[in-house]
Amino acid sequence: MTPSSDTDTSQNPSRKRLDHETRTAQIYQAAARLFCEQGFGQASMSEIAAATGMTKAGIYHHIDSKEELLYGIMSYGMDLFEEMVYDRVVGIQDPLERLRETIRAHVLLVTRDRPQELTVVLNETVALKGEYLLEINKRRRRYVRFLEKTFQEIIDLGLARSIDPRVATFALTGMINWIYQWYKPSGRIKDTDLAESFVDLFLGGVLARP
Amino acid sequence: MTPSSDTDTSQNPSRKRLDHETRTAQIYQAAARLFCEQGFGQASMSEIAAATGMTKAGIYHHIDSKEELLYGIMSYGMDLFEEMVYDRVVGIQDPLERLRETIRAHVLLVTRDRPQELTVVLNETVALKGEYLLEINKRRRRYVRFLEKTFQEIIDLGLARSIDPRVATFALTGMINWIYQWYKPSGRIKDTDLAESFVDLFLGGVLARP
Repeated sequence: MTPSSDTDTSQNPSRKRLDHETRTAQIYQAAARLFCEQGFGQASMSEIAAATGMTKAGIYHHIDSKEELLYGIMSYGMDLFEEMVYDRVVGIQDPLERLRETIRAHVLLVTRDRPQELTVVLNETVALKGEYLLEINKRRRRYVRFLEKTFQEIIDLGLARSIDPRVATFALTGMINWIYQWYKPSGRIKDTDLAESFVDLFLGGVLARP
Repeated sequence: MTPSSDTDTSQNPSRKRLDHETRTAQIYQAAARLFCEQGFGQASMSEIAAATGMTKAGIYHHIDSKEELLYGIMSYGMDLFEEMVYDRVVGIQDPLERLRETIRAHVLLVTRDRPQELTVVLNETVALKGEYLLEINKRRRRYVRFLEKTFQEIIDLGLARSIDPRVATFALTGMINWIYQWYKPSGRIKDTDLAESFVDLFLGGVLARP
């Protein structure tokens, strides 16, 4: 544990100096919340500093720029997504079962855990630039290719109607990525019911089968 | 036509002074583009001024604040949406036909016309505050209620599977509102094909009917 060199704790000497890792984690948490509440462009480094009880100079001891913070938050969002969704379903043999489990896991990640880091991934794509953007997009594209391949396998088995795997992929990700805009965990729709409804609706459509 | 009192044309006396209405329209267009490209928080009034060939002071002769610009752009986006989608379908008697036409019109609005004002409506909700937010949300809720009512009518006619009208409404708006994130008008998927695919996929689902 390396002692932190920021001086923000001087006003309260009894407070233990926090190590770099803990401080950085606090900064990321505060930034993720402020980026969600106000948007990346409006949230200032001063506000992020205030939310962590640090000075702006203290913040810059731990991170280089607001852009680095944004990338770090999105990276963590993608880590979570891959751990909770992608890695759990990618090995399922039956493509239909793989699709069902993907919808369930993805819906439950955004309804139950509601990680702010994922909201930042969805909301702030225009703010991310250069290498940072390429890196996040590479991870997003892997999920897109995984879904397209899954739809193609379902088509090849003769189980699907005439659909374009790309259209189906983005129709599905749109449905799920929109959830954070309207779903309230405290509302009348239970997260597990929403997950099953999305499976039913996406696989079976709105219309009753004759 | 009232003569504009901003002095930006002084460097080029041959250029006709533009009237307030034209200037305001230019400011809104530039702001809509910059808000789309950079996000509301990052786009500065100086950049908006530069994009219209005006000074920052000149801009403030025509509009009061960046927030007013944001609201004006979103209002115009909602005007477009209502003119091209809502107003055209709200009177259709048969709820199933109403739903199909709504999907078609909404998809074609976002693929064919791709109005930047609608992208701003979708992207910048956290940036809008107070009365401005209430006003835009009122118009959004009208569309949500219209869709919920349409799904309920389809259910009441015995044509739908067991679905929650609210879940169906937000699944559909998610699919459509996501289009601007991935669809390229110059790509291999034609806008009219996408509209029909979304109708088929949403009404019939992915799976082949036995």
